[in-house]
Amino acid sequence: MSLRKKEIFLQTRAAEEVQDITAEVNAAIRDLGLRDGVVLLFCPHTTAALTVNESADPDVREDFRRAFSQMVPKISFAHAEGNSPAHIRAAILGPSLVLPVEDGRLALGTWQGLYFCEFDGPRRRQIWVYVVVEGNAAQS
Amino acid sequence: MSLRKKEIFLQTRAAEEVQDITAEVNAAIRDLGLRDGVVLLFCPHTTAALTVNESADPDVREDFRRAFSQMVPKISFAHAEGNSPAHIRAAILGPSLVLPVEDGRLALGTWQGLYFCEFDGPRRRQIWVYVVVEGNAAQS
Amino acid sequence: MSLRKKEIFLQTRAAEEVQDITAEVNAAIRDLGLRDGVVLLFCPHTTAALTVNESADPDVREDFRRAFSQMVPKISFAHAEGNSPAHIRAAILGPSLVLPVEDGRLALGTWQGLYFCEFDGPRRRQIWVYVVVEGNAAQS
Repeated sequence: MSLRKKEIFLQTRAAEEVQDITAEVNAAIRDLGLRDGVVLLFCPHTTAALTVNESADPDVREDFRRAFSQMVPKISFAHAEGNSPAHIRAAILGPSLVLPVEDGRLALGTWQGLYFCEFDGPRRRQIWVYVVVEGNAAQS
Repeated sequence: MSLRKKEIFLQTRAAEEVQDITAEVNAAIRDLGLRDGVVLLFCPHTTAALTVNESADPDVREDFRRAFSQMVPKISFAHAEGNSPAHIRAAILGPSLVLPVEDGRLALGTWQGLYFCEFDGPRRRQIWVYVVVEGNAAQS
Repeated sequence: MSLRKKEIFLQTRAAEEVQDITAEVNAAIRDLGLRDGVVLLFCPHTTAALTVNESADPDVREDFRRAFSQMVPKISFAHAEGNSPAHIRAAILGPSLVLPVEDGRLALGTWQGLYFCEFDGPRRRQIWVYVVVEGNAAQS
């Protein structure tokens, strides 16, 4: 059994931005040849993160961006780069997500999409997609 | 190798509620026939989430409910349904959890239980349980 | 296929502390004989958690500790032990992490390290490391 991996590259366009990357990850799943299984999505950055939430209304992404912008306590930070709040926002959402795949695409709920959350952009970013399990979906 | 999945259905009873669903997930693990391995729990909703925390004292669940109710900054939200804070609370906890299974049940710490966190109920909800790995536990 | 597990023991030294445990987990990965694959890291405690973030500048860890110390709303908590904020901080970061392994070590971004976050110490703590997948990394 070999560990299959695919890298996705993104360009963010603002200091803080929430991008829907469901289509990009579904394209990677296609490239990996995975029909049914489980994938690990890993964000190798310390000021960006992944999450799943409502994708139908773009207002939700904008509300996310603005709420996270105020989520971290306004204390005096030591880290000299000045982006400590971005590091902490990224940790709140987390660096990795494990998601089911059915019929060759992320098996999400009706309203769900996958978000890439930029907290210290604009930057060139990447996401690593790994096949964790491959199988034939058998629902009970 | 086939991908095994079991759906769990829940009814929440309040706008905000924290339910201990350890027993329901252990029943699903039994139905899946898994003795030792790893499961993926996925919440296909955008205003509810899963977490693991203390289950011995029900006060902790109530403290969770009340703290999360105030966790999100009180900004003016754009999303017309008015439940943007519920979306953000769900994302803070996250849509999926990967957990170990030993001896046919979730392998949790002494005080831990699995919580389903409702942030926009009451609703009928579901959790998807996938077998990620099956094996014989060999501890070192 | 057997499920391989390794336990790591830690001693925390303060009520709130952020420790870099990348080296300890890499040692566990070596002991498990894993070269390329995916591991599940599970924290069996209800007032401590795991995350990945910048490890190059120790100031980031200190900023984390201080920001999380103020992250939870100051409400009146019911749980008699008085450590409800610690439970909630742990849930915000989450009890488990799934991470890729390449060339016998955690495959992290350039600036990333693995943090153990103590919110109710000092205590003797443990982390459970499970091999989820083993394979030969083939990047595309």
